[in-house]
Amino acid sequence: MTTTNRRIVLASRPDGQVTPAQFRLEDVALPALADGQVLVRNRFLSLDPYMRGAMNDRKSYRQPQALGETMVGGTVGEVVESRHPGFTVGDVVVGGFGWQHYGLSNGAGLRKVDTSRVPMQAYLGVAGMPGVTAWVGLNRIISPKAGETVVVSAASGAVGSVVGQLAKSAGCRVVGVAGGSAKCSAVINGFGFDACVDYKAGRLVEDLAAATPNGIDGYFENVAGAVLDAVLDRMNAFGRIAVCGMIAGYNDEPIPVYNIRSILTNRLKIQGFIVSEFADAWPPALAELAQRVGDGSLKYRETVSRGLESAPSAFIGLLRGDNFGKQLVELV
Amino acid sequence: MTTTNRRIVLASRPDGQVTPAQFRLEDVALPALADGQVLVRNRFLSLDPYMRGAMNDRKSYRQPQALGETMVGGTVGEVVESRHPGFTVGDVVVGGFGWQHYGLSNGAGLRKVDTSRVPMQAYLGVAGMPGVTAWVGLNRIISPKAGETVVVSAASGAVGSVVGQLAKSAGCRVVGVAGGSAKCSAVINGFGFDACVDYKAGRLVEDLAAATPNGIDGYFENVAGAVLDAVLDRMNAFGRIAVCGMIAGYNDEPIPVYNIRSILTNRLKIQGFIVSEFADAWPPALAELAQRVGDGSLKYRETVSRGLESAPSAFIGLLRGDNFGKQLVELV
Repeated sequence: MTTTNRRIVLASRPDGQVTPAQFRLEDVALPALADGQVLVRNRFLSLDPYMRGAMNDRKSYRQPQALGETMVGGTVGEVVESRHPGFTVGDVVVGGFGWQHYGLSNGAGLRKVDTSRVPMQAYLGVAGMPGVTAWVGLNRIISPKAGETVVVSAASGAVGSVVGQLAKSAGCRVVGVAGGSAKCSAVINGFGFDACVDYKAGRLVEDLAAATPNGIDGYFENVAGAVLDAVLDRMNAFGRIAVCGMIAGYNDEPIPVYNIRSILTNRLKIQGFIVSEFADAWPPALAELAQRVGDGSLKYRETVSRGLESAPSAFIGLLRGDNFGKQLVELV
Repeated sequence: MTTTNRRIVLASRPDGQVTPAQFRLEDVALPALADGQVLVRNRFLSLDPYMRGAMNDRKSYRQPQALGETMVGGTVGEVVESRHPGFTVGDVVVGGFGWQHYGLSNGAGLRKVDTSRVPMQAYLGVAGMPGVTAWVGLNRIISPKAGETVVVSAASGAVGSVVGQLAKSAGCRVVGVAGGSAKCSAVINGFGFDACVDYKAGRLVEDLAAATPNGIDGYFENVAGAVLDAVLDRMNAFGRIAVCGMIAGYNDEPIPVYNIRSILTNRLKIQGFIVSEFADAWPPALAELAQRVGDGSLKYRETVSRGLESAPSAFIGLLRGDNFGKQLVELV
């Protein structure tokens, strides 16, 4: 049996921008399997913006990532050894084993998934945590009505692309905000949004106004900063904003917002949320998402980097917005 | 019968700070009473921050105040002539007749009030719109639980002082924010708050931290600006913010907020509201407030300027924070 595990640990905390120096690759011994345990060879690692927050040592919704410990993260892989009655060699399981090749578990937090119609890595994206995040923010906070206008930032990303497609199914006018004409083109042509504003084109306020002639009723916030200000200025009365991420602020720079007066004049509701706290939403959301991936009505894109060693640079690229759709690392 | 009415109209829109030049005093003829009408001699005029927003000619939750028309505002007064079956000379009525001595009405929007235990002008403050505003923001949006910490800005004002007293009755630790040691002293000693932070003392962040050792669960927002930033930084997980006013921004200067990341990390709910849109809350709120004013358990303070002519300077003072408690004009 394999006795060595390759992993990446947090070597130091970033001071602003994340650099490769914050990560350290290690080969460590794998302990022998105890009774009731299962050993998983991870095949795909999910990279997500929340990891940037976890790298800071300060109050947040999650414990800081410990120094010298394996970087946290969602994984999908195959059971390669089992002394647990609930798992058989060959089972495909989603877990949170982090940035490493192998995971050892007593089964808690592992979920077996059906890969007959949905590829395993989709359970880390459109049919997994990012998809459920989209579902919760849209259905539980924005609660869109047919005919309303919903705007989504980071629209080509793993979460944003699902938000838009679900809102479109709900009968809304759906407008994305993304960086660059290639992403905007995919948001419209690949994911079926009605319009997409390229925030890198330098006409954010004007382009958003043109794309939302009836104002904005719901906003799914992934980025903060200038996009949030532009959106606040276009919100309609009784608009709802689901705050899922604020990637613009992950590097600790201040992100002032100027148009908060709109909260009062338009009687907005703004709510920050974390998908793990909506436990009751996961079963219906996962079922709907997997169904729609299986029948082809929910589109998704992935950016896959190859090899655990590539994870730091892929993660830094994710924070810069280099990825297109769900960022994965294939753990070959 | 009286045939002349004295009123103040909006002469011009402010460019930033309001000045007396924006107002014009006029004496105009009163039309004769038609069948079904009632004539009221207003005794007190309420001055409120929302009037500043109405003076601007831009999108807001209310129609802009028309140029050349009587300034809008809540009033209480006595029926002096009636050709309406529902009103008798001597009835005391709350209405929205604005900045003038007389009001002519078909009865719509007039509410007869009982002045046997509550003085008439209290129906413009603690037992009127400002009191109901406090009640709605606290009970419908913040929904405080015993043991939580609730912070109120503009704590010595007509709304803030009621918020604090109601939250205290709900078993909360209640912390006010007010300008100057005299106001802070009254907030603690007069209204029974647990603590008060003097934002003019130059130690807003430190003093707020000291006054909220267990963080902040609910915030009733009346001012925005630096206070909002300081509060956001102290919010606990699942905190609620009721946005009632943003007086710091009424003069059109930008009011950037920096700590909005707290919305995400603490999963905050922030909601802007306008009390007139909570119609179902008015009857229970008015009943509770009048009851508590009558039995002496709800304290209030008033700043009364004398004579319609004094209204512009009193209003400008209100925007500067010169008033103490509810700002009224006695229409002698």
